[in-house]
Amino acid sequence: MPTVVQKYGGSSVADVEKIRKVAERVAARAADGTRVCVVVSAMGDTTDELLSLAKQVSGAPPRRELDMLLTAGERISMALLSMALQERGVPAISFTGSQSGILTTADHASARVLEVRPFRVEQALAQGKVVIVAGFQGVSRETKEVTTLGRGGSDTTAVALAAALSADCEIYSDVAGVYSADPRVVPEARRLERLGYEEMQELAAAGAKVLNAQAVEFAKEKGIAIHARSTFGGPEETVVGPGASAERIAGVASQADLALVSLPPARMPQALALLERHGAVAAEVHLQRDRALLALSKENVHGFQALADELARELPEARLDAEGLGAVSVVGTGLGGSHRVLREVANALAELKAAPRALVATPLRVTAWCDAAALPVLVRGLHVRLIG
Amino acid sequence: MPTVVQKYGGSSVADVEKIRKVAERVAARAADGTRVCVVVSAMGDTTDELLSLAKQVSGAPPRRELDMLLTAGERISMALLSMALQERGVPAISFTGSQSGILTTADHASARVLEVRPFRVEQALAQGKVVIVAGFQGVSRETKEVTTLGRGGSDTTAVALAAALSADCEIYSDVAGVYSADPRVVPEARRLERLGYEEMQELAAAGAKVLNAQAVEFAKEKGIAIHARSTFGGPEETVVGPGASAERIAGVASQADLALVSLPPARMPQALALLERHGAVAAEVHLQRDRALLALSKENVHGFQALADELARELPEARLDAEGLGAVSVVGTGLGGSHRVLREVANALAELKAAPRALVATPLRVTAWCDAAALPVLVRGLHVRLIG
Repeated sequence: MPTVVQKYGGSSVADVEKIRKVAERVAARAADGTRVCVVVSAMGDTTDELLSLAKQVSGAPPRRELDMLLTAGERISMALLSMALQERGVPAISFTGSQSGILTTADHASARVLEVRPFRVEQALAQGKVVIVAGFQGVSRETKEVTTLGRGGSDTTAVALAAALSADCEIYSDVAGVYSADPRVVPEARRLERLGYEEMQELAAAGAKVLNAQAVEFAKEKGIAIHARSTFGGPEETVVGPGASAERIAGVASQADLALVSLPPARMPQALALLERHGAVAAEVHLQRDRALLALSKENVHGFQALADELARELPEARLDAEGLGAVSVVGTGLGGSHRVLREVANALAELKAAPRALVATPLRVTAWCDAAALPVLVRGLHVRLIG
Repeated sequence: MPTVVQKYGGSSVADVEKIRKVAERVAARAADGTRVCVVVSAMGDTTDELLSLAKQVSGAPPRRELDMLLTAGERISMALLSMALQERGVPAISFTGSQSGILTTADHASARVLEVRPFRVEQALAQGKVVIVAGFQGVSRETKEVTTLGRGGSDTTAVALAAALSADCEIYSDVAGVYSADPRVVPEARRLERLGYEEMQELAAAGAKVLNAQAVEFAKEKGIAIHARSTFGGPEETVVGPGASAERIAGVASQADLALVSLPPARMPQALALLERHGAVAAEVHLQRDRALLALSKENVHGFQALADELARELPEARLDAEGLGAVSVVGTGLGGSHRVLREVANALAELKAAPRALVATPLRVTAWCDAAALPVLVRGLHVRLIG
């Protein structure tokens, strides 16, 4: 009997009405004999609301307690979805990350999945139940503490479970797959029929919200194809798998709320250790002869001010640029081998009167850091010029 | 080093400001060298809000999923209190019911504590940490499922932990102890300096909200004295322990949202089995020659309508009285041995022009079931006539 892991994000289960509709879709899928395991995120803005409570009681909330707090979110949505399914007469049962056997590292707020031991999930599926699993969370293998996988971690939960269950993996969100840019920003954006793992990783790392970067890495490792679809839409999808998209340039993505740390290359080890103490991971590191550049997202750092203060105190030679900073990236497999795309990006930025604060080109991506306020104009301008 | 278990109810941690104040109080207590274990309920109306979500997706929410859902409430408050303490420089750590070793029966929504194995709690206390424990929840000893202890179950968590840790037990709420009646209803109500376990059990069963009846039973079993105090008030308290209060009549309490089932005595076993299938427990059972009376609280029954429907279908000879029904009770150790208090209650009810729908007298209590709308007038009237 075929098994599928479906993941529904926060906006797909934002209220009781939507939870009922998701239950309807899941029930239809289960009715054709498929064994269905559903991974859910917290309802709508629950995670942000909980985070805001934490920030009200603590300047820099301890990450262990933050994980304890935030995991309440998926517990609520999974229980409600299980109830909605049982209300329709579909046998269902919900499991926390820990109960589902999602074993992780002990890095609170940014744990990585080490192993999945889905005994209870398999048992319940074998009993003909739809299994609902709390996304974004697990339990540390050594210390048995509750952990979270960082923003977007529910995608990782879904891929890891699909691999462990030898199942197909479907990720549902507001949009019917992966687009060449955010359709809300670029009306000309088009859906990509298929996309290579590497392109998707670059797009996700560059700010495309459809799929989480760690989830794609996991899928690549395990050879799992991800089907990205719209929760309440039709069968249109993007399949992310081995290979690459048909296009030279897959898409344009952007990201706000970034920080750049620039410092002498010799101080790099101290800087990385300092970031790690604050649970922050540099998304990019670029070394030149006399200057090193660390780029990171402020979003995943709880208590960024504390990090900034410590940086100023311990590494006075570092320069931090974290005010209104964003980045726009052009991603594609056809970018290496010549500087053509880099030149096109530089020309487009000049035409759009944007002076990048930093710029990086790799075989798969060109990224320019610039004023966050200019991002929508830059994304659309680059899309029109480079893709159409 | 002395150890204390303090329990703070939902209204004591209703918002971020109150959580900060509780942290201040706990910190002060820990500063004098006491080892402090804090049991918290869910913030304010969280449990009711979650319950309302459940009722929106399901007519009769399955109790296993309801427990999964509701336990999110204490997870939020315990993590926030731990953060607030650490923000003040006090080492703290939060544990769920399961992590605290609260082992229960598998009766979802009304589990009973079987055993406490507080290894992690003891270890953290020995490390000098304040330990925050999620009240109201545990894990079933056999099936390892998340369970809840029913309304007011956080008191039970506190008493059970105090017994397991050989600690003092302090229960904090809006009022400074146990009063002879609800001071919001009866301005003349007075605080009782001390109260016997049995009196407190009767008062709690009769609707006094200060302490949970199961918690008092547990305390009696283990010989733990409970100190009931005001969260943000002074040192005034009521000590609930062995013995009895100094008064003939300890207090008057009332309860709304009740149901009475009356039926031929021969059908009693079926009726009790039916209640159990719906997770309902009869608070009282009274048998006469030709009629049996079951009294229960609708509050603890999730999906009361389903119970009522099944009762009408399976036991058509049963009569259900569940519309606007309440009860007023007079509690005291001096009630047995004569009918004096019963006569006084009956006279007072007649003066107050209340015709009870049922009436029961035991050595410790006289209870009259009547219109819920009349309860405030009856409580005050009985208090003035019988106590002062």
